[in-house]
Amino acid sequence: MTVAQLTAEIRRKQTFLCIGLDTDLDKIPAFLKNTEDPLFAFNKAIIDATHDLCVAYKPNTAFYEAYGSMGWMALERTIAYLEESYPNHFTIADAKRGDIGNTSGRYARAFFETMSFDSVTVAPYMGRDSVEPFLEFEDKYVILLALTSNEGAFDFQVLPAPQEALYLQVLRKTREYANADRLMYVVGATKATFLKDVREIVPNQFLLIPGVGAQGGSLEEVCKYGLNNQVGLLVNSSRGIIYASGEEDFAEAARIKAAQLQEQMSAILLNSKI
Amino acid sequence: MTVAQLTAEIRRKQTFLCIGLDTDLDKIPAFLKNTEDPLFAFNKAIIDATHDLCVAYKPNTAFYEAYGSMGWMALERTIAYLEESYPNHFTIADAKRGDIGNTSGRYARAFFETMSFDSVTVAPYMGRDSVEPFLEFEDKYVILLALTSNEGAFDFQVLPAPQEALYLQVLRKTREYANADRLMYVVGATKATFLKDVREIVPNQFLLIPGVGAQGGSLEEVCKYGLNNQVGLLVNSSRGIIYASGEEDFAEAARIKAAQLQEQMSAILLNSKI
Repeated sequence: MTVAQLTAEIRRKQTFLCIGLDTDLDKIPAFLKNTEDPLFAFNKAIIDATHDLCVAYKPNTAFYEAYGSMGWMALERTIAYLEESYPNHFTIADAKRGDIGNTSGRYARAFFETMSFDSVTVAPYMGRDSVEPFLEFEDKYVILLALTSNEGAFDFQVLPAPQEALYLQVLRKTREYANADRLMYVVGATKATFLKDVREIVPNQFLLIPGVGAQGGSLEEVCKYGLNNQVGLLVNSSRGIIYASGEEDFAEAARIKAAQLQEQMSAILLNSKI
Repeated sequence: MTVAQLTAEIRRKQTFLCIGLDTDLDKIPAFLKNTEDPLFAFNKAIIDATHDLCVAYKPNTAFYEAYGSMGWMALERTIAYLEESYPNHFTIADAKRGDIGNTSGRYARAFFETMSFDSVTVAPYMGRDSVEPFLEFEDKYVILLALTSNEGAFDFQVLPAPQEALYLQVLRKTREYANADRLMYVVGATKATFLKDVREIVPNQFLLIPGVGAQGGSLEEVCKYGLNNQVGLLVNSSRGIIYASGEEDFAEAARIKAAQLQEQMSAILLNSKI
C-alpha cells in the first residue's frame, strides 16, 4: 500500500486512527481463553468491530513473542487476515528492529515478505546501514523512532543544549538515506509542542503518534502542530480501545472508543479544511 | 547463569569465545535442507562440534524471524538444546529489542521466561524505562548496544566534539539504572582503540565484542584495550566460524576455526596473567 493510497483512505473515511493490537492473554476476556487461538480470536473480533473507523492496525511484536512460536503464529494469522479481509488498511509491525546491514535485511524479509506488513518500526541507533535495507522494498515503509512517548526519551533523545537534540539530528540525518521517501517517523504525543520542531525538518513525512489515550496525549494539540496539507498523521491508540471492556462486549466497547476518536478526527479535518 | 560462573568457565576453558548462530538457509550445507528442521539440525551440529572451545552462543533473532513461526520454533529448540545439553554456556539472544516499559517487560518475558536465555541485547535509544524491565530478572543480563561495529555507528553514536560522543553518554547514564550490575555492553571491535575510553567509564562490566573475523577486527587490539582483571570480554565470531565450509564437513571446519581463536585467546590470557 502506498502513502497516496493511505492518504486517500484517510480522506474517504475521515479518520487517521491507528489501532494498536497489543494483545495480552492476561487482559483479554476470559471466555476467549479456551478457544484454539485466543490471541487471533481477540484480534479478529476487534478488527471486525473497528475497521471502518480506522485506517491502520499496529500489532506490537513484543506481545506475541512473549508467547513464543504460538504467539508468532497468532501474529502471522492476524496479518494474513488483515491482508485478505481488509487490504485497504495500512499495517504496521511495531517491532523496533535494527541491526547491521545484512541482518536488518533479514528483519525486512521477516516483516515484508514472510509476513506482508506495509511498514515496520525501526530504531535509529545503529545508523544508515541498519535502516536502508528496510527501505529497499517498493511500496513498503519504515517508521523510524524519532521522539518516543516514554519518560526514557529524555535520557538520550532530548539532550540539553548547546547541541541540537538527538531526535532532531536523527530526523535531519535520515533524510539523506537512500529511498528516504519511504521513511515515516514515530513522534510521541506526550510532547506535542515538539512537533513544531519536527515539522520544520520533515514537513511532508507521515508521523506515527503513539501515546494518545492511555499514555495521556491530547489529540487537539497533536493536530495543531502535526497536521500537514496531506494530513500526514497516523494517531495510534492501543489499550484505550482494545481493553475498553474485559467482558463479552469487548468488541462493541472497542468500537465505541474508536468511534469517539474517529468523530474527533473528522471534526478536526473539517475545521482545518484539509 | 551468573557473571561469576561465566568468568570461572572462561578461566577453566581458557577461552572467551562467543559463537554467533546467524543461521541462514541459503548458507547451510545443501544436504541439511531436506531434514525436518534444517536450522536446528545445523545449530546442533555446530554446537556439538564447538562447545569445548567457547563459553557462549549467540543466535541473532533476525535469521530465525525471516522464516516466520517455523524459524521461531527452531530458535526455541536451539535454546532448549543448549539448556539441556550445555547448561554451563552463557546464552545471548541477539535481539536488539527495546520499547516503552510495559512492552519491554513482554520482550523480557519472551527471552528470559518463555525461552531461557541468560541475556539479551537491547538498544538504548528509548532510555531508562525501556531497559530496566529487562534488568529485573535475577541472574539474567542485558547487553546494551553502546558502540556497534557497523559503518552506521558514525551516524549517531560517534558524534563530533564538542559534546561527548553519544555512546559514552549511554555508558555513563546507564550506570545509574536500577540493577545496573546486570548490564553488559556491545562494543564493536572494528574500533578497538575506543575501548580505552569505554573502560574508563565501565571498568568492571563485561563487554560483548562483535566484528572479530568476518567484520575484520583484531583480537590482539581488542584484548589490549578491553581486558580487565576478571577478563571481562566475550568476543563473538559468527560467519567466520559457522560458514567455514558449506559442505558435509561444516561442523569439523567450524571446530577448526573456533580452535584457532581459542588458542589465540589462551595465549593472550597466559601472557597477560589474568
